[in-house]
Amino acid sequence: MKALVYHGPGQKAWEDVANPTIQKPTDVIVRIETTTICGTDLHILKGDVPAVEDGRILGHEGVGTITEIGSAVTSLTIGDRVIISCISACGHCEYCKQGIFSHCLGEEGTSGIGWILGHLIDGTQAEFVRVPYAETSVYKIPDSVSPQEGTLLSDILPTGHEIGIRYGAVKPGDVVAVIGARPVGLAAITTAQLYGPARIIAIDIDRNRVEQAKLFGATDSIVSTDDNWKDQVMALTDGLGVDVAIEAVGIPETFAMVLDIVRPAGHVANAGVHGKSVNLPLDKLWISNITITTGLVNTNTTGTLLKLVAQGTLPVDQFVSHSFNLQDIEKAYDTFSRAAETNALKVMLNA
Amino acid sequence: MKALVYHGPGQKAWEDVANPTIQKPTDVIVRIETTTICGTDLHILKGDVPAVEDGRILGHEGVGTITEIGSAVTSLTIGDRVIISCISACGHCEYCKQGIFSHCLGEEGTSGIGWILGHLIDGTQAEFVRVPYAETSVYKIPDSVSPQEGTLLSDILPTGHEIGIRYGAVKPGDVVAVIGARPVGLAAITTAQLYGPARIIAIDIDRNRVEQAKLFGATDSIVSTDDNWKDQVMALTDGLGVDVAIEAVGIPETFAMVLDIVRPAGHVANAGVHGKSVNLPLDKLWISNITITTGLVNTNTTGTLLKLVAQGTLPVDQFVSHSFNLQDIEKAYDTFSRAAETNALKVMLNA
Repeated sequence: MKALVYHGPGQKAWEDVANPTIQKPTDVIVRIETTTICGTDLHILKGDVPAVEDGRILGHEGVGTITEIGSAVTSLTIGDRVIISCISACGHCEYCKQGIFSHCLGEEGTSGIGWILGHLIDGTQAEFVRVPYAETSVYKIPDSVSPQEGTLLSDILPTGHEIGIRYGAVKPGDVVAVIGARPVGLAAITTAQLYGPARIIAIDIDRNRVEQAKLFGATDSIVSTDDNWKDQVMALTDGLGVDVAIEAVGIPETFAMVLDIVRPAGHVANAGVHGKSVNLPLDKLWISNITITTGLVNTNTTGTLLKLVAQGTLPVDQFVSHSFNLQDIEKAYDTFSRAAETNALKVMLNA
Repeated sequence: MKALVYHGPGQKAWEDVANPTIQKPTDVIVRIETTTICGTDLHILKGDVPAVEDGRILGHEGVGTITEIGSAVTSLTIGDRVIISCISACGHCEYCKQGIFSHCLGEEGTSGIGWILGHLIDGTQAEFVRVPYAETSVYKIPDSVSPQEGTLLSDILPTGHEIGIRYGAVKPGDVVAVIGARPVGLAAITTAQLYGPARIIAIDIDRNRVEQAKLFGATDSIVSTDDNWKDQVMALTDGLGVDVAIEAVGIPETFAMVLDIVRPAGHVANAGVHGKSVNLPLDKLWISNITITTGLVNTNTTGTLLKLVAQGTLPVDQFVSHSFNLQDIEKAYDTFSRAAETNALKVMLNA
């Protein structure tokens, strides 16, 4: 088969590789219909995720059809169309039993991390993929949900929802600020609306992006390069700051921004993937009664979000900015990595 | 009357001052029976809290008898013996209505901080004190609770309980580590036992202090100057780290320690008063699903703790290491500020 193979920092190729095979009784093999590229894949290509080895097939999102099943698999069958979760979870370790699938201690996740596809084992940017722990790691996709919509449920929508909105404890009447109007931030903005906030403020360095965020449900947009961006935030609250500030970029500057606009007793939810440590001004914050959360998605709300997408309550089509044939994945990477110019959000790859 | 007056960094004196008077209809005047010195008072004397002005009477803890009441006070009367909460709360601002008394926006707390006694207005290290917002800021003390026990309920016990244990979300079966076996840490250890943890690990640089912590309910003690202190923590968990790590010191080194021992999906509760910013290694922690909390006590569990002390369920006598007459407060400061030598915990001052 063909697959997108990582060959060390800056190096990747769409090349011939061996087809995956069932290795454990709990595996399934899926023929990919649709996959996509995540910002995390770009981090890997920059060399930021050294656990990814030369020869690894990238990708942790996708929808496809099961072509083979392991002998222990009973609730899935050949021909089932499924969403592949970015988190592979054994379902029976201490963390899985608590619903913390992101830290599954199963034997495939040797580092105690449930994100193993396209990381510690071969991923979904390929014609076929082996999915371990299949019965706890895929979701049957109803006909009313397109493969592109399903692919958004592999990672981006549950990440924005769980790590942004649920960890941020958004509740009715809250003023929510989201810094970074890119896919994860837009997923937070989209799913925030399920919780009845009073305002959702999109903040980004790019004026086009914050305006676009209104299509996803932001009520207000602020360009962070404006000198008075913080005053604009305070003017939209009662001067005390926002109830929930979500960081969806992953750099020290934007983490400092969320700390700067959260009100006493507010929540800071970090959804960005960070490559550097940050400053935490505890000399000011020890007294402020704030809660800061971090996290990798558990995907334990994927089923809930799938139901809402299936019934049309959660519109997600606008996340897809570009579509390519799977074999043109290198062009898709080029488009996605130049998002500032191409306005790429999610770039879909259809087999 | 006599009072302990702050005169700028390093300067204080027990001196004659005018008696306090009712200034607002919601005030009461309390004749102090017992007061104490807090670590925060030492921070003030170091100059770490610049909002405290020359001439300010220090102290935010104490028990006494009401000698005058304002015209709006209906539920308290002259002669009532009361615990004075370290937090003065108007009871009707946006924050008070949410139970976040620590950030009361009442007119006495011009900075939006409920801790005003011995900070923004004159405090309790005096023969008399004016207590604003009296009906929402004092608790009638039953005869079964001594004034010394009541004084522990002004600040230290609710702080350990609310900012350590409740913000840390301690639950049955958890392994809890408390770094800093001084009064706030010991209050966390004491109140943790209300929540059924599997283990409470006391960690401190001082071997005597961690051993003493066992008298307060710690199940295990670790001296943090041991090279293998972290290995000792891991050996007491299942190698994954603790469920809840409480920082009760207030320096960058101990904050780094709590981050180092918390397990994925665990809680870090900062109860220390910090004078410096700290490093937050988000490059490692973005993926770890941890929750970090900070805060000033709200004192909204003071009534609960008072009930438990009154019925003997929460033993607190062992917090009192030294007692002095109130007029000997300068000796008491000397003893308390040399706690490493004197083994001082809470130093009681009795009028």
